[in-house]
Amino acid sequence: MTDPRLAELTRLLPDLKLSTDPGDLDHYGRDWTRRWTPAPLAVAWPASVGEVQAIVRWANGQGVAIVPSGGRTGLSGGAVAARGELVVSLDRMNRVLDVDPVDRTLTVEPGIALEAVQNAAREHGLLYPVNFAARGSCQIGGNIATNAGGIRVVRYGNTRQWIAGLKVVTGAGDLLDLNRGLVKNASGYDLRHLVIGSEGTLGIVVEATLSLTSPPPPSQVMLLAVPAMDALMKVFAEARRRLRLEAFEFFTDKALRYVLAHGAQKPFAEEHPFYVVTEFDAADGQAENDTLAFFEYCVGEGWVVDGVIASSEAQAASLWRLREGITESLAPHKPYKNDVSVRISAVPAFMDEMQTLLDAEYPYFEVVWFGHIGDGNLHINVLKPADLDDAAFVDQCEHVTTLLVETLVRHGGSISAEHGIGLVKKPWLGSVRSEAEIALMRGIKAVWDPNGIMNPGKLL
Amino acid sequence: MTDPRLAELTRLLPDLKLSTDPGDLDHYGRDWTRRWTPAPLAVAWPASVGEVQAIVRWANGQGVAIVPSGGRTGLSGGAVAARGELVVSLDRMNRVLDVDPVDRTLTVEPGIALEAVQNAAREHGLLYPVNFAARGSCQIGGNIATNAGGIRVVRYGNTRQWIAGLKVVTGAGDLLDLNRGLVKNASGYDLRHLVIGSEGTLGIVVEATLSLTSPPPPSQVMLLAVPAMDALMKVFAEARRRLRLEAFEFFTDKALRYVLAHGAQKPFAEEHPFYVVTEFDAADGQAENDTLAFFEYCVGEGWVVDGVIASSEAQAASLWRLREGITESLAPHKPYKNDVSVRISAVPAFMDEMQTLLDAEYPYFEVVWFGHIGDGNLHINVLKPADLDDAAFVDQCEHVTTLLVETLVRHGGSISAEHGIGLVKKPWLGSVRSEAEIALMRGIKAVWDPNGIMNPGKLL
Repeated sequence: MTDPRLAELTRLLPDLKLSTDPGDLDHYGRDWTRRWTPAPLAVAWPASVGEVQAIVRWANGQGVAIVPSGGRTGLSGGAVAARGELVVSLDRMNRVLDVDPVDRTLTVEPGIALEAVQNAAREHGLLYPVNFAARGSCQIGGNIATNAGGIRVVRYGNTRQWIAGLKVVTGAGDLLDLNRGLVKNASGYDLRHLVIGSEGTLGIVVEATLSLTSPPPPSQVMLLAVPAMDALMKVFAEARRRLRLEAFEFFTDKALRYVLAHGAQKPFAEEHPFYVVTEFDAADGQAENDTLAFFEYCVGEGWVVDGVIASSEAQAASLWRLREGITESLAPHKPYKNDVSVRISAVPAFMDEMQTLLDAEYPYFEVVWFGHIGDGNLHINVLKPADLDDAAFVDQCEHVTTLLVETLVRHGGSISAEHGIGLVKKPWLGSVRSEAEIALMRGIKAVWDPNGIMNPGKLL
Repeated sequence: MTDPRLAELTRLLPDLKLSTDPGDLDHYGRDWTRRWTPAPLAVAWPASVGEVQAIVRWANGQGVAIVPSGGRTGLSGGAVAARGELVVSLDRMNRVLDVDPVDRTLTVEPGIALEAVQNAAREHGLLYPVNFAARGSCQIGGNIATNAGGIRVVRYGNTRQWIAGLKVVTGAGDLLDLNRGLVKNASGYDLRHLVIGSEGTLGIVVEATLSLTSPPPPSQVMLLAVPAMDALMKVFAEARRRLRLEAFEFFTDKALRYVLAHGAQKPFAEEHPFYVVTEFDAADGQAENDTLAFFEYCVGEGWVVDGVIASSEAQAASLWRLREGITESLAPHKPYKNDVSVRISAVPAFMDEMQTLLDAEYPYFEVVWFGHIGDGNLHINVLKPADLDDAAFVDQCEHVTTLLVETLVRHGGSISAEHGIGLVKKPWLGSVRSEAEIALMRGIKAVWDPNGIMNPGKLL
């Protein structure tokens, strides 16, 4: 620790765990994007709100930038530290602080993994319903910073909907205790909602009170084979009308091929262009009839050509693996990712144009898509050919992204459905937010973080 | 229109409906509070977004303050114009602009009444679930400005949860088009949520895209007689565990007496200290068994001593009238209102302390309470003795409010659950928001409204 700024930090907080070990710098300077070379000043692991606050005040005094750091499973570079920042890892602040079965809330430190939150709720007969594949390693603080979505949004909304209270250390070093778990509190600007989705640029979440709900009734998982893209949203509309949906996800034949190669089990004898995995309430006999009627109707209309309903929990898990295993199965191919959304009603027209665009612009690259089609959210993954240089690959993909953005704008969509802007999507922020909005965001940022130390260069 | 500022406005917008008629100034300068003498400069009724924007720019140029004005059913003085402001009434901007059954959204102008929104949704087989007694006269723009709650929050949340998009003219005159109906859009600070609940201090809502949902299954309405305060939350806990609640409201014997005097029908032969009206799903035979089991359990525990289930829609309406008619039945007594909330788990202890306080401090005033107890929200109405001067009455009540606030703070509560801060609760804002939070709010206000023309003196 020869850096005088770090020496000062150690003097202020002698018990603070701090590292400048090159392995730590490399590990904690990255998220799941791989485009930036980590170069933080150091990594700190505060163990208390007081330590976080002291670090932020030190950073203001020393002019050191801070990158708040959770599970670093982000896909937009929001947790990258490549410019001499102090990484503030919340790994050590990972406890459940309180469970209240009357309020149906769970109060946790920010470094707790999503899966640990889900388990803690389940132990009390309750549900924390936000869910996605990275649940084992992502942290609730990061979920809040990106307003994480995932596979249950169609039923339960995004993370935003489940935050009853937040403690936040602002960029100025003030500790805020926002909303304190109240169901109703009409007392001025809801700063809690400003922090949710702010990608660490306003402050550091140091505690969260999460709302829980009753677990849903028993559900069924069904996989459907869909012969044509234009049938997907028709199947969705029928499913939403007839069933009580928990999830409605789609993926393509190409996505399936990668998951199968990665060890998943083939669901149908034949191949089909599109697949839907859906989960829905199945509490009683009526639900069984509804399911059958839904399936038969879709088959009769030619929108579905095959289907399977899981008859055991193991089979349900294996159907879900076909969708949830995609990201991991693609990872070795260093995919370039788009995470786009349009209004649900705009999905068919947008998908048509998008497919035409991708076919024309990526004649030599493999493109795999899947996503939360019931939320209007599509994930596009362009796989890097093994012989192509990383930077050249990204350049080509960014060129196509610029074209894709034009299509998105025509359909009123967003360049970031759930991954956030971070570093990756900054060039296109102006496609989804107006100049006036961006100016307001900058103004708000300056109010919360007057010295600009909080995750600078991200988002704005 | 001899005022040169108004002459300039008329020159800029020759078609703008504008009035300085004393009757209009008096009518549009008030909300449901009656503590301020209306004294606006004039009332304007813009008919388009363009006119709103031009008015805001004129106001910046002329240094005229603006009071955005909806149905003026507010109870905190947020729509009062008593200091030479221009009232901008949204009465003429009251159309349904679009219904999208695929997105399940309704796009409306801000001046539409809540009830008209509910009806428009129903015409398309869908539900806009926010609901409260002022539905016929309150406007959606005002609902958004206060994040209105009401009687279905226990099931559906506040207004915030149902806003998929907002168009807003900021205090600087910029037109923002926020979120545009997307389900997922992780692209920076969610300014939409900052506007919701901002009480007209940041800008004027000029269009809203509302999310709709499927109508609930058939429901039942039940009225319960509860012998003691400490049983109320036990009944709630059981009801939440065993039934799928739509609403869970309580009121006292005194509240009932006023509603009965106002023409409602007596529900039980005997009088009881507390009543609960609850509505819950009753789709099938199982639900009937659950209801019976719930009722018998509560009776067995001594928490409930009588009950009635509505056997027709007319009876359901008459049970609901017992709760929804309270505010109107109290109005002639010029009630001083507290609208407080605590966490649900804190309700029993808080109610105990509150009752002791009210008994001690209001020996000569009648105090009527009721509220959304399933959300931790209590409405306290202190009735003005006929022979007491208005100002002296308010003075005495404000003294007690200051004591009540101390109790609230001890229980982590809020001085405004759903009515907003407005003018009425400004003295106690500091009891629910910290100095740092208020400083951030002021900073944000300055970013959105640099000349301070938007509803000045309200909230902050």
